[in-house]
Amino acid sequence: MSEAKPAVDDGASKMTATEADPPGTIIVKKTLRSRVICLALTGIALSLIFNSQGYPALYDPLKACVGFSILAYLITVALIPVLGPEFVRVGFFGKDLGKKDRPVIPETMGAVCALVYLVTMFFFIPFLFYKYYVTSTSGGGNREQVYDASIELIHKGRALRMFPHSKLAEYLAALLSLFSMLVLGVADDMFDIRWRNKLFMPAIAVLPLMFVYYVDFGVTRVVVPEFVYSFFIHGSMVYPTTIDLGVFYYIYMLSLAIFLPNSINILAGINGLEAGQALVIAIFVLFNDALYILPGRLFGLRAEHPATEAHLLSTYFMLPLIAVTLALLKFNWFPARAFVGDTFCYFAGMVLAQVGILGHFAKTLMLFLVPQVFNFLYSAPQLFHIVDCPRHRLPRFNPETGLLEPSRVYFKPNPCKIQAILLHTMSLFKLIHLEYDPKTGKITSASNMTLINLVLTWTGPLREDKLAIVLLLIQAGTCMIGLTARHTIAPILFGRDNI
Amino acid sequence: MSEAKPAVDDGASKMTATEADPPGTIIVKKTLRSRVICLALTGIALSLIFNSQGYPALYDPLKACVGFSILAYLITVALIPVLGPEFVRVGFFGKDLGKKDRPVIPETMGAVCALVYLVTMFFFIPFLFYKYYVTSTSGGGNREQVYDASIELIHKGRALRMFPHSKLAEYLAALLSLFSMLVLGVADDMFDIRWRNKLFMPAIAVLPLMFVYYVDFGVTRVVVPEFVYSFFIHGSMVYPTTIDLGVFYYIYMLSLAIFLPNSINILAGINGLEAGQALVIAIFVLFNDALYILPGRLFGLRAEHPATEAHLLSTYFMLPLIAVTLALLKFNWFPARAFVGDTFCYFAGMVLAQVGILGHFAKTLMLFLVPQVFNFLYSAPQLFHIVDCPRHRLPRFNPETGLLEPSRVYFKPNPCKIQAILLHTMSLFKLIHLEYDPKTGKITSASNMTLINLVLTWTGPLREDKLAIVLLLIQAGTCMIGLTARHTIAPILFGRDNI
Repeated sequence: MSEAKPAVDDGASKMTATEADPPGTIIVKKTLRSRVICLALTGIALSLIFNSQGYPALYDPLKACVGFSILAYLITVALIPVLGPEFVRVGFFGKDLGKKDRPVIPETMGAVCALVYLVTMFFFIPFLFYKYYVTSTSGGGNREQVYDASIELIHKGRALRMFPHSKLAEYLAALLSLFSMLVLGVADDMFDIRWRNKLFMPAIAVLPLMFVYYVDFGVTRVVVPEFVYSFFIHGSMVYPTTIDLGVFYYIYMLSLAIFLPNSINILAGINGLEAGQALVIAIFVLFNDALYILPGRLFGLRAEHPATEAHLLSTYFMLPLIAVTLALLKFNWFPARAFVGDTFCYFAGMVLAQVGILGHFAKTLMLFLVPQVFNFLYSAPQLFHIVDCPRHRLPRFNPETGLLEPSRVYFKPNPCKIQAILLHTMSLFKLIHLEYDPKTGKITSASNMTLINLVLTWTGPLREDKLAIVLLLIQAGTCMIGLTARHTIAPILFGRDNI
Repeated sequence: MSEAKPAVDDGASKMTATEADPPGTIIVKKTLRSRVICLALTGIALSLIFNSQGYPALYDPLKACVGFSILAYLITVALIPVLGPEFVRVGFFGKDLGKKDRPVIPETMGAVCALVYLVTMFFFIPFLFYKYYVTSTSGGGNREQVYDASIELIHKGRALRMFPHSKLAEYLAALLSLFSMLVLGVADDMFDIRWRNKLFMPAIAVLPLMFVYYVDFGVTRVVVPEFVYSFFIHGSMVYPTTIDLGVFYYIYMLSLAIFLPNSINILAGINGLEAGQALVIAIFVLFNDALYILPGRLFGLRAEHPATEAHLLSTYFMLPLIAVTLALLKFNWFPARAFVGDTFCYFAGMVLAQVGILGHFAKTLMLFLVPQVFNFLYSAPQLFHIVDCPRHRLPRFNPETGLLEPSRVYFKPNPCKIQAILLHTMSLFKLIHLEYDPKTGKITSASNMTLINLVLTWTGPLREDKLAIVLLLIQAGTCMIGLTARHTIAPILFGRDNI
């Protein structure tokens, strides 16, 4: 089709890039089977999108969203190999330190995902609001009613008056925040913005969303357990037991928006981990959404759960995220042929933070982030320089075994008394591996305080993909426990379940 | 304040960058006077922003907008010298071909402008909608009324119900389009996207705006002159004489969004021209807005023009654009210390196209684009390869005189008969300068068909800044004629003026 293609098309006959290929070339095998699957998926996607206006009307946007997500996956999978060498050419590349030959890998491929995601969401807008502006029938599929021109005009007029501008504003604000996150993420990948500056980038990106939240919901009440409620408010109990956080609710949302993108960015550095954890969390958010949406749909309950709309919106944001993340993971999984870049971590984190804010389920979201929270707290002594922090804390690649080993921080001078107490305590709980000077008995080195290194000290050296699998299993396990707790313990604590 | 600063601070004592400075260093003289002016401007800006909630309430967002624009100017002026060397470091630079030593100049500085512009617009959102969500008084400054808590709640409730979500959606959609234009512009500057691909980038960026236009206004009627009206519609004349363009109206808006950014991008290549033309057009749009807004304000007319709201929105978009463009021009004017990049052309063009679409004055806008339209039509024979087109058509720099001369296209083989007729005709109207083979009398070369080269063939060689001034005077002159025609001839043609 174009000059850039042949290098990729030739890939059908060869497995690995040769010297002749430009650096960062991603070889994609194009077998007959893969072509047929690709065509079939496109067909399914298009039929879902263009038949999405069938009945019952409520299903529509969801079907279209599935269709668009499939397309987003296919487009991302096709774009990454084409753009990989281009990214390397203009300077977006990194060397994979976890491999023997340290190959040059295209970096910031998350930007491709993010752009595909956002353009998909652009095209999805009309489908999301279709039912409001085209026709408002009397229900039961009586669409033929409105074919009479005058009635159609009346109906259209009514439909336009009914148009949920607040929902549109919400959706647009969410996309706006994501776009600004994309720009800031790419700027970070390009200029290596300093840690203290980039920490607050999500705070700027989330501004439009906060404003829309303020004017649209203004809900600053959170449900709290009964005993907390009775602690604050002495009087008769009203269900649900809520307290008004006021301005603190906005600070709480802002913190979520700052914490989530950065926490995904910190738990990173091995092939497939960034995209993998985002995928696992997104799937669990989707699963939680399904718990609200499906009962009403499957059992045909007329009275839907009041939170259904919010969880539908969350679903519309999650499905394309899962699609582009899967596409990215295809190239980012061990041995990686593309790196995700800070852009992806920020972007995916922001999508998750947004659905938490808009869907008003920020607390549930936090239950899915146990490994990230743990990793952050566990890293804190090094991040805040209570203990020495080397520039890189990635696990060390052992070229002899081909396995990853925990990286270590070497103390010169020896740690002071307070540091030593901290380190010994952590060692007692097997949270750290220490080495001692055989003569003086003082601590000479410790394993670095990241979840990745901690797993390696527990399991012993692992190959990179095994390590990623263990970490993702931990993620999935904690998410599972969190989700179960959300719907078993929480109802007891809060006095009711909101499913 | 930081490590990057000293290079700039030292600038107080030196005028030009030395060998020791990193490439792309922009020396800024910081005199006492400039510091005082800067401080005074900041003070004025802050007082405008934070006193903007006074009475009469209608003035508020406008005052805040002026304040934010001043801040945007100051921030852009401060950021460009700091980020210049950083941009050069990561590969955003160009060589100035219009100078003897072809210095390395930071490129894509338009991205800085665009980002400052967008973040300014983020912060402006609450001020724009302040009057709707804080209080709805009975007018005349009776704000104390609502201090009673219960009344406040009622009022707040009413204010929230009254909240113009459609306006918010409009504003957010506009920002969303601008953000996507910024991303696509940067991608173009980075990867040199092919001409045929980048032509349609604005079409994707403008999608959300088109959708909001569809659901919010759905106005696809345009005012046409009486004779056009009577040509289409045989019957009684109704004022205003409008015809419904239907779907063609959307195609028309889409074309505007595609044409405007690209046309600014084509009329480019000499110091100060891109930013200068955007500035001139923006000032005239602002002037046209003022014609609608000021009469109502100054003479205290209760019944404001129905288009006032639209022109106010346009003003809110124009003022910060003028501010950041002025800041950019400060560094882009001859001799340029920063290049604007395609990013700026796309971005500024998109802001202009947007206000034309949202303000429903696309036709008026076209009157301000006469040089761009002329340049496009005039370039057409070369753009569509009817006549040979060299890779670059910038004017040629003559190192001996230091002046710019028209660049030429040399024909080998000699032009065919049809081409020769076209060239001779254009030469007859002094639209082109031809050279002939003294022996055969055939055409050997012609001046390139761009407005810039045309001006040079008329005036003779000019220094770069003189040329830019001539071109900007042409822009201002045609805008002046256009604006006058808009409010003198148009009312006769259309049967009324809508001022």
